[in-house]
Amino acid sequence: MTLSEFDIIRRYFSAAGAPRADVAVGVGDDAAVVEVPPGQQLVLAMDTLVGGVHFPDDTSADDIAYKALAVNLSDLAAMGAEPVWATLALTAPRNDPVWLAAFAEGFNALARAADVQLIGGDTTRGPLTVTVQAHGLVPRGRAVLRGGARPGDVIFVTGSLGDAGLALQRWRQGLPSFSADHTYLAARLNRPSPRIHEGVALRGLASAMIDISDGLAADLSHLLAASAVGARIELAALPRSEAFARVCAEMGEAQGAQIALSAGDDYELCFTAPAARHAAVTALFAGFDCGCQAIGLIEAQAGLRVWQDDGTLLSVGRGGYDHFAS
Amino acid sequence: MTLSEFDIIRRYFSAAGAPRADVAVGVGDDAAVVEVPPGQQLVLAMDTLVGGVHFPDDTSADDIAYKALAVNLSDLAAMGAEPVWATLALTAPRNDPVWLAAFAEGFNALARAADVQLIGGDTTRGPLTVTVQAHGLVPRGRAVLRGGARPGDVIFVTGSLGDAGLALQRWRQGLPSFSADHTYLAARLNRPSPRIHEGVALRGLASAMIDISDGLAADLSHLLAASAVGARIELAALPRSEAFARVCAEMGEAQGAQIALSAGDDYELCFTAPAARHAAVTALFAGFDCGCQAIGLIEAQAGLRVWQDDGTLLSVGRGGYDHFAS
Repeated sequence: MTLSEFDIIRRYFSAAGAPRADVAVGVGDDAAVVEVPPGQQLVLAMDTLVGGVHFPDDTSADDIAYKALAVNLSDLAAMGAEPVWATLALTAPRNDPVWLAAFAEGFNALARAADVQLIGGDTTRGPLTVTVQAHGLVPRGRAVLRGGARPGDVIFVTGSLGDAGLALQRWRQGLPSFSADHTYLAARLNRPSPRIHEGVALRGLASAMIDISDGLAADLSHLLAASAVGARIELAALPRSEAFARVCAEMGEAQGAQIALSAGDDYELCFTAPAARHAAVTALFAGFDCGCQAIGLIEAQAGLRVWQDDGTLLSVGRGGYDHFAS
Repeated sequence: MTLSEFDIIRRYFSAAGAPRADVAVGVGDDAAVVEVPPGQQLVLAMDTLVGGVHFPDDTSADDIAYKALAVNLSDLAAMGAEPVWATLALTAPRNDPVWLAAFAEGFNALARAADVQLIGGDTTRGPLTVTVQAHGLVPRGRAVLRGGARPGDVIFVTGSLGDAGLALQRWRQGLPSFSADHTYLAARLNRPSPRIHEGVALRGLASAMIDISDGLAADLSHLLAASAVGARIELAALPRSEAFARVCAEMGEAQGAQIALSAGDDYELCFTAPAARHAAVTALFAGFDCGCQAIGLIEAQAGLRVWQDDGTLLSVGRGGYDHFAS
């Protein structure tokens, strides 16, 4: 027996995520109805993952769903917003209950952990495409934008860079991934960790913030352009996981640094803060597992300058991952 | 020269729709930031159109964009919500500036007319898929839901039924469409008219409301199920346009009635109101061009009964268009 669109919605998605008191009407009417508390602004992020473009075709359904929500929660985190609701547009080639159950499970796992309720969306037939919109709240005027960096500000990055890019590169090359390090890297690709609490805690401390989805060089460049400033960063300072370092040792340092600098799918936060607040940032991140690393300084001169250990400048191309470039 | 994702967003979408004072941050940061006024609830609708599934592959880019926004504004109308913002996830196979300019133009035409600002979204490469989320406002507790119909309520339909279904059927059969009637029907398929002002005006008057996207029989059945009631409607009462009647005359009345009852893509409103408010509904619609027709009555007995002119009951199957049925 196959399930109709209405059955699918009822069975898998009508009670997905964490139930919330601010949802007046959830899945099941023409539209959802929700409450935004007084004094709060609404923050909206929408991202699409396309099968074969943003994830390998053999990615499991639960990982696809987890990631589709995670990348949007990462955008909210980069604004300092607290996530509350999500909507989901799922286009899938077949109406396969096993696949859909796994998809719902992956979505649910992160939605519950983040206290996010699924309040609406659409299911359609077609090539695999997943669009999620995440909705967050921030006290009026306290969203952290890209445009607030000033010369002298310190540039920070959360967590570690390049894990997902390295996993993707190995997958593309058909390399095996059975060791604990490879499993770790694959998990970083398939189930990124949106830095939700970190983003919220950085309100009032970060002068500018962006999440790293297209690679540090590309996303930091967006922040610099929005702030009308430039920057210098130290290649050796880019935070790398132990697994990344061990797997990279086989390929040589230069290639590893390039991946950390330019590969996409990190979903870490890149933010700036006045140098006088450096100690406050360090103190704040003592309370978070992911860690936070100073990687450089904002400068008045436009452009991104990446300094290498030997005192020479790295030539940086466009670098980032542009999903729509032809 | 091809445009990158960032160029596309900047060129075509960063200033789309009507500029609004309640948008603090629009396109261009990690997420949008908007204001919901005190006393208002936020209403959210998300619908996807897939190329080759929800519209013929040769549909023009401007019509695709117009319709993708229209179907979402129709959902808001069915809640009695006033539309304010939209987000757009556009997945397209090529980065074609001419096609994108036409798409943006179609989106803009309706967004400006409806005073809706495009505040965010995503552009990706892949099979043509368009997801729009429309955001509306409604005074707290005044959204019109599906579940409020009571026995004795009169059932109404705005505008006319079957125009889009007939146009689609003719397109599938490869029939010509050069006459004024055929042009009218095709426009009803490609550029539906969301009943925005009508939906807002029906707050406090309609006891239940739904928009007709999957066909009257299917969508009225959803309203009945949500209200735990049944209904009788008169097949001859279903409102039909003059163009529909003339084109249908060639096919015979029975087939025309079936299309008006069951074909999808009408994007009219179906609503109920207490019989004592029938005159108020009539008076209200004297101020709207689309018209409004009483088609039947809510009854306590579950199920939808469709009466024909000859006094016999029409056998109604599931009827509606289920985008995900296998």
